[in-house]
Amino acid sequence: MQTPWEYRYAHRIQTLRSSVIRELLKLTEQPDIISFAGGLPAPEVFPVDRFKDACNIVLETIGRQALQYSASEGYIPLRQLIADNANKEGVSFDINNVLITSGSQQGLDFIGRLFINQGDYVVVESPTYLGALQAWNMYGAQYISVATDEHGLIVDELEKALRIGPKFIYVLPNFQNPSGVTLSLERRREVVTLADRYGVPIVEDDPYGHLRYEGKHIPSLFALDSHYHNLDPNAGNVVYMSTYSKLLAPGLRLAWMIAPEQVIRKFVMLKQGADLHTSTFNQCVTYEVARDNYLDEYVKVICGVYKERRNVMFEMMDEIFPQEVSWTHPQGGMFLWGVLPEWMDAAELLKKAVEKKVAFVPGSAFHPNGVGKNTLRINFSYSSPEIIREGITRLGFLLREEVKTAVK
Amino acid sequence: MQTPWEYRYAHRIQTLRSSVIRELLKLTEQPDIISFAGGLPAPEVFPVDRFKDACNIVLETIGRQALQYSASEGYIPLRQLIADNANKEGVSFDINNVLITSGSQQGLDFIGRLFINQGDYVVVESPTYLGALQAWNMYGAQYISVATDEHGLIVDELEKALRIGPKFIYVLPNFQNPSGVTLSLERRREVVTLADRYGVPIVEDDPYGHLRYEGKHIPSLFALDSHYHNLDPNAGNVVYMSTYSKLLAPGLRLAWMIAPEQVIRKFVMLKQGADLHTSTFNQCVTYEVARDNYLDEYVKVICGVYKERRNVMFEMMDEIFPQEVSWTHPQGGMFLWGVLPEWMDAAELLKKAVEKKVAFVPGSAFHPNGVGKNTLRINFSYSSPEIIREGITRLGFLLREEVKTAVK
Repeated sequence: MQTPWEYRYAHRIQTLRSSVIRELLKLTEQPDIISFAGGLPAPEVFPVDRFKDACNIVLETIGRQALQYSASEGYIPLRQLIADNANKEGVSFDINNVLITSGSQQGLDFIGRLFINQGDYVVVESPTYLGALQAWNMYGAQYISVATDEHGLIVDELEKALRIGPKFIYVLPNFQNPSGVTLSLERRREVVTLADRYGVPIVEDDPYGHLRYEGKHIPSLFALDSHYHNLDPNAGNVVYMSTYSKLLAPGLRLAWMIAPEQVIRKFVMLKQGADLHTSTFNQCVTYEVARDNYLDEYVKVICGVYKERRNVMFEMMDEIFPQEVSWTHPQGGMFLWGVLPEWMDAAELLKKAVEKKVAFVPGSAFHPNGVGKNTLRINFSYSSPEIIREGITRLGFLLREEVKTAVK
Repeated sequence: MQTPWEYRYAHRIQTLRSSVIRELLKLTEQPDIISFAGGLPAPEVFPVDRFKDACNIVLETIGRQALQYSASEGYIPLRQLIADNANKEGVSFDINNVLITSGSQQGLDFIGRLFINQGDYVVVESPTYLGALQAWNMYGAQYISVATDEHGLIVDELEKALRIGPKFIYVLPNFQNPSGVTLSLERRREVVTLADRYGVPIVEDDPYGHLRYEGKHIPSLFALDSHYHNLDPNAGNVVYMSTYSKLLAPGLRLAWMIAPEQVIRKFVMLKQGADLHTSTFNQCVTYEVARDNYLDEYVKVICGVYKERRNVMFEMMDEIFPQEVSWTHPQGGMFLWGVLPEWMDAAELLKKAVEKKVAFVPGSAFHPNGVGKNTLRINFSYSSPEIIREGITRLGFLLREEVKTAVK
């Protein structure tokens, strides 16, 4: 007798598909593939020794506490460190504005749980982060995709979208995933003003803000927004998210949300039902690793490494890619965005690329409405400069061939 | 200008309350309270040195891998270890039947996501685990509470409940939280038979199965169920859950689910949207701690400690509690269940108890329908024998006083 499991699933999961990116990551597990598909940090710069020391210190000094249950809100010293860091932008958050989550993905899930009723509209950038769509599809979200250019969201388009009555605006202001584009200061001011005028909250997702390789840091949306609320940390219009996955190590699954206290209290209740709390041990160890400004020093190291890789990729693309293909020039982060000729399908290209042992992510995955068939996301943080040279060469020759065949 | 956050929340969270247990745990943070309220393991027996060695070995040998992103399904050696352990019950699961979750609470959340449509019925024991109700309320579950006695679920009542058409049956067969009761072998067979007959899956939640202080291990429901399906691990009718929180350390947030592969694949998709994957580092470290049968040896140690504490509690209750109060006599686990006289309200008693600096959890929290006002849950794993003597003395004198006042 077979139990008919498939007749028991709730309707919310009927349309559930395995994540395109996660499935593609399986390709990267073949050792002979050069993968620009994932969003992986470079493991060879992980501060393994610092982690070793931190584990030993934590277990020797607060071992029993670190292995025990702890508060849903997170480990207080870590929350304080995060608040202190945010306050460098001229705001005054305290630990009650900070929730530790099990990775940013959990933050995205909580945002869906807290805000999205079946059929609610969410404003997203076009393209936008795939993981957010994946989290919010579960709650029945519909999307209003706002066009972007090399300075981020196009503000006139955003205002039109706000008149539709969305639940919130989702923005990745720095070195966006997938496009690599950064929202300009002028537009940030306009986005914050519009959001306040229409009473629509902003979800600011900022995993890459510290990974800047040129240019100057641009104030966060939460900092710009605070001036509309007399700098009251509990009156703002922004939920801010960031993560240690890109600053230290993703294997810890440690991220955070910053928001007005009343919103954090709701997220804490969701946290209790979702996983009680994030690993106490990982929080204690990460605090021990990050403290005494170690994180600032370490970020300089990874910025040096990623900048070199980005530059090598730019050079190789300039040299080898056919002129029919263009790409963004991110000032930081991990990704750039390629635009192929209109007639070219990136998903088809991927199949051929995998035969040549090189991989990327087709851009349509980053659009809720399936457009962007001729676009692709390329990661430059994971592979060494040598591998980047080889991979871009393979991809470049494939592209040239495609263009040549089409011209015939 | 204040942003009206409260008008933006989705309807599913309008009825959200902070967990009674989590709020009560805040009481236990006052150092002068003797708390029998929490479900905490004894931190003084955490194998801190073994963890230290494991961290060093992991970081020295596979440090980069342990700090990197990893598969949503979990770390393969750990999944293999879990499958091997389950297979000691005469079944033949492989790693494709195992998903690592961020604590059992996440497993409960996933079960709600996968199975519960708004208004669906779920069969639960009366009383049942509070964290499950908390997870499933979010998905709009309704509950059919089936009465229990000292041998667990009453089977005739279960059959009546199955005719109502529930989505699944939720059972904690071993040393149940909160009651401490164990489902007898005979009833297990009957539950499995009924579930198969009515085509209703079983969710078997087993955090305490290895914490047995007397008597013999009783086969798991998944093992009994497997005989209805020709021992095919992918044809069964049970989703099984257990956790390292009670076997090793809850601060890691590491638990697992075992189910037919088609069901695990669905859970994996939910995992991708919820938090991508559980901490790679914690999975590697826990495997390193648990391997080479260390876990079996360690479980003997904690069983020794908890058995002594349970016995001290039994003795003290026998000696001091008034005869109007009765309690269960669990053969394992962490909790016992007290029944007060009908007219006594455990929540009112708690207020007086906190004044005397002793705490427990009122039993009504463990009933979806608010009954059980005269019941309470008492934890015996966390406090030392000395503290148990003092705490039960305080509680016993309070109870005597209450009974005496009422008789007048």
